[in-house]
Amino acid sequence: MEYIKNIREKTPLIQFITNYVTVNDVANAALAIGASPIMTDEIKDLDMQNICNALVINIGTLNERTVETMIQAGKRANELGHVVVLDPCGVGATPYRNEVINKLLEEVKFDCIKGNISEIKAMANVSSKTNGVDACDADKTTRENMHDVFKFAKELSIKTGAVIAITGPIDVIADSKNAYISDNGCKEMRAITGTGCMTAGIIAASLVANPNDKLKAVTAGVIILGLAGERANKYAKGTGSLHIGLIDELSNMNDGILEMGAKIERFEI
Amino acid sequence: MEYIKNIREKTPLIQFITNYVTVNDVANAALAIGASPIMTDEIKDLDMQNICNALVINIGTLNERTVETMIQAGKRANELGHVVVLDPCGVGATPYRNEVINKLLEEVKFDCIKGNISEIKAMANVSSKTNGVDACDADKTTRENMHDVFKFAKELSIKTGAVIAITGPIDVIADSKNAYISDNGCKEMRAITGTGCMTAGIIAASLVANPNDKLKAVTAGVIILGLAGERANKYAKGTGSLHIGLIDELSNMNDGILEMGAKIERFEI
Amino acid sequence: MEYIKNIREKTPLIQFITNYVTVNDVANAALAIGASPIMTDEIKDLDMQNICNALVINIGTLNERTVETMIQAGKRANELGHVVVLDPCGVGATPYRNEVINKLLEEVKFDCIKGNISEIKAMANVSSKTNGVDACDADKTTRENMHDVFKFAKELSIKTGAVIAITGPIDVIADSKNAYISDNGCKEMRAITGTGCMTAGIIAASLVANPNDKLKAVTAGVIILGLAGERANKYAKGTGSLHIGLIDELSNMNDGILEMGAKIERFEI
Repeated sequence: MEYIKNIREKTPLIQFITNYVTVNDVANAALAIGASPIMTDEIKDLDMQNICNALVINIGTLNERTVETMIQAGKRANELGHVVVLDPCGVGATPYRNEVINKLLEEVKFDCIKGNISEIKAMANVSSKTNGVDACDADKTTRENMHDVFKFAKELSIKTGAVIAITGPIDVIADSKNAYISDNGCKEMRAITGTGCMTAGIIAASLVANPNDKLKAVTAGVIILGLAGERANKYAKGTGSLHIGLIDELSNMNDGILEMGAKIERFEI
Repeated sequence: MEYIKNIREKTPLIQFITNYVTVNDVANAALAIGASPIMTDEIKDLDMQNICNALVINIGTLNERTVETMIQAGKRANELGHVVVLDPCGVGATPYRNEVINKLLEEVKFDCIKGNISEIKAMANVSSKTNGVDACDADKTTRENMHDVFKFAKELSIKTGAVIAITGPIDVIADSKNAYISDNGCKEMRAITGTGCMTAGIIAASLVANPNDKLKAVTAGVIILGLAGERANKYAKGTGSLHIGLIDELSNMNDGILEMGAKIERFEI
Repeated sequence: MEYIKNIREKTPLIQFITNYVTVNDVANAALAIGASPIMTDEIKDLDMQNICNALVINIGTLNERTVETMIQAGKRANELGHVVVLDPCGVGATPYRNEVINKLLEEVKFDCIKGNISEIKAMANVSSKTNGVDACDADKTTRENMHDVFKFAKELSIKTGAVIAITGPIDVIADSKNAYISDNGCKEMRAITGTGCMTAGIIAASLVANPNDKLKAVTAGVIILGLAGERANKYAKGTGSLHIGLIDELSNMNDGILEMGAKIERFEI
């Protein structure tokens, strides 16, 4: 396992079209793990992609102008053969978000789609409640229902060609054949905004630097963030210092820490 | 007093149309006190309000597009019976901001209007100096002039139907009949951006969770933020760690801490 | 040397039209050093400039709407005799950014242009590689190539009338006659987003408060940020706590610390 070493050596250049709520954390998390983030959402500025390795689209604070940029950037990233990650933030909560996600899925091919379980259920047309941008408690993945989760993750993976990452108390990462579950992370992380958005960026970095096995690369990305939060939570005095500690831990993360700390299981699905 | 317990149990879902300067802190402060924030400013995405309990409008980095969204969202929130809080950030500093605030007051009914004293004076048409988004020192509330402050706060409350919260070295919270003053907070908080914006979100959460006495609910919201900053300031090493400590303290805040720490007086006005 | 005392006494009011990635840090850094930041990017809101002392333009997340505001604001700031600082974030990376910077240079006179070496090379039409918003390693200033750097900094200064600040492992600050180099800062700061953006704001504050010698005022601004990061790095546990420590150090910075910590040399060029 040299996932993190590969990121730090290759310094993936990642373009983000993302929400303005968590954008600073997304940039600092990407830098902390060894990637180089670029934020731009102006359609005239998409030549930026020529020097990039990956694109992350997050619809958190979408508007008509930026949605148009997302679509054009996604198509161009596909043409350039770049890694493309989708964070369908808040999908299922409004008809407009659903429409935008459907349009993106029609026009763009994604390497990974990462969401909380309510978002992924909404995309997989599985009955779900939504709580805005947070997952609904009734939806959460447990040891009991995880095979149901594997099932719709697998279906969404087959439909889209993407690795599906479902973050939550138990994280699920699945393609059409296999799934990993991870117990990394801690419940306190739910009280910090942006952990999901940061995860998407780290996944993109991991996919660029570790292209041979996409499922494992995405899984590594999910675990890195969870493990960083879990480690920071040991000394955090509240959600403010947890937030900062998480970035500290990302900047100190290496493959040894990842290997020792990863709590994962693999399933054929 | 179970203000905070009520917030943590009810987890108010709050939509923010707010500035991009302090939005991350606003989200993290809301999460820290037990609310669930959603940021969206696209008019097509306003169906988000159907799942929300409250709306906070902050004009800090307004533009023509988001102003239109603010108005539509405000009207819809009124129809839905949601709590609506206005943070008239920088009003009085430009004719455009004045025009927008007048339009908002015409179209939307607010449960609370929270500003610094320069902003509230501008809204109450009281002669004032402005210093952009910061209050002018010449304006600040003191024990000597506070009855004058009560007077125009009362008038603005009668005119708008809102509870008026005026933050500063001495905070004033007033409706048409009563006023509270609070000595919580510390002067170092002036050197962190976003304390006012965070306060507005916490007020909204408090109003949703404590609907029976609006004046007390708003007062609790103002004190919570001030007290968190005051406590963090005891160990902060500068404004960076004060900022983080403030979020830590919010996440650890409970009704016992609030009751022991609140420095308030009540006046009939 | 009373650079910082002057800032804290004059409290320069600085308008920022800046990117949404680092805007919170820019505001908190400005506050920490004693300035008062105002962020607004709506063309109808430019009356805000009437109460300001300076304007900082940063094109990091430019779009067509905000570019128009930048140009109008820049022209108005020139008419009002305000300090104007340009941060040409990412110039050289896309034709659109180049076009915008050319337009800004045609329409607006800047007191200071601050960028990393790749950005300044792009503006000086010196052959360079770009790495998006980060400087390219191949470009970095060293003791060996610094006279070449002085040469194109001088040329850009003559062409624009601005003091040129080139941040990097060795910072170069030059006008048409003299250059300072500074060894302050630390390499860990490259892994935090926004250090350059914060520097531009501190430069603007320094120029307002110390108008007699622009070259020295800009140099002080560059050193203040570098020194704050360097000091924070002594106790930081990672890039998260370095980020917060940097703001703490800015808030505690004074002219004694600056004088003792500045590592500078002056050259005639």
